[in-house]
Amino acid sequence: MKKRALGPCVTFFPQPTTMITSIGLDGDVNIMTASWAGIVSKTPPTMAVSFNHNRLSYNNIRQTGEFVVNLVPTGLATEADLCGIRSGRDLDKAQLCQLKLEAAQQVSPPLLTYSPLNVECRVTQELELGEYRLVLGEILQIHAAEQAFDEHPNGDARCFDPLVYLGGIREYWSLGEKVADAYQAGKILLPGQA
Amino acid sequence: MKKRALGPCVTFFPQPTTMITSIGLDGDVNIMTASWAGIVSKTPPTMAVSFNHNRLSYNNIRQTGEFVVNLVPTGLATEADLCGIRSGRDLDKAQLCQLKLEAAQQVSPPLLTYSPLNVECRVTQELELGEYRLVLGEILQIHAAEQAFDEHPNGDARCFDPLVYLGGIREYWSLGEKVADAYQAGKILLPGQA
Repeated sequence: MKKRALGPCVTFFPQPTTMITSIGLDGDVNIMTASWAGIVSKTPPTMAVSFNHNRLSYNNIRQTGEFVVNLVPTGLATEADLCGIRSGRDLDKAQLCQLKLEAAQQVSPPLLTYSPLNVECRVTQELELGEYRLVLGEILQIHAAEQAFDEHPNGDARCFDPLVYLGGIREYWSLGEKVADAYQAGKILLPGQA
Repeated sequence: MKKRALGPCVTFFPQPTTMITSIGLDGDVNIMTASWAGIVSKTPPTMAVSFNHNRLSYNNIRQTGEFVVNLVPTGLATEADLCGIRSGRDLDKAQLCQLKLEAAQQVSPPLLTYSPLNVECRVTQELELGEYRLVLGEILQIHAAEQAFDEHPNGDARCFDPLVYLGGIREYWSLGEKVADAYQAGKILLPGQA
């Protein structure tokens, strides 16, 4: 396969599209889109989200120590994009995008109602990385769309309909088809399994 | 939207499917599948990958301070799954899966030839998180499939054909359709743009 050297850059994908909800000491809720977000430990369950240190959401999270990671479904692509390119210092993004919010169980920032997966987190530590801050949060509670479990014990991917972000390419995509079952498909390659 | 509380767990997606290449002090190359991988800073370009501390790949990376993150295309789903469920201590996964390797430019672990995106990293720091270790690596060089740039200046997502992992659901999926352009689609919601 012929390849092109891109040099050191941040072209990497696929990534999740998430909206992070946080709340300032003034009680104002902010919503910020983030794709540098993921699981980093199971003991205890922990998420990491990277923020530019100038972000209002980062400031809120430093003050309160709490945030919610809300998975973005394809139907909210336009709203998610807006919440990534404008600051909550300049406009009320929840109001502009008509995003409905509801109370979380264990943290003060709200859940995004139309998100099919909400992850409530409490900050455990942070790391300074140049202009960015990697914030680690222990997962306290996860809420998932009930409908996804009607016929699939682990959840039906089509019900979640997650918006996939392609960093570097700068595009949002939907999921296509299921390719394989994890922890299962590879066994066929083991000696004696063919 | 009716929701179900899952409790604190690691159900979160979409995630990238990557194969991490590393090399031990004995010169043996190991390949490990990881989905807890992502960009965490642009200053300098940095990736983070989380490993169970018992993993051979983590041991290799501690010894050499270098690793490569190889994006998995849908065509390598079976091989990627195998490289996630078996240890390099028990078998030579590159050989079993007939995975071709080639030299990297700036680090000693090799690139996975059939991966359309290879990210060469040098370790800058690590974080202990229970049984896991979050390893941060500065991105030194990225190699991308040349063909992806024939008609798309930022790269054609269909050429990369990334395998999307759904953690919790435990399934691998392909990409479907482009939903929107990032840094662009949301502008229509701004006052005066409708």
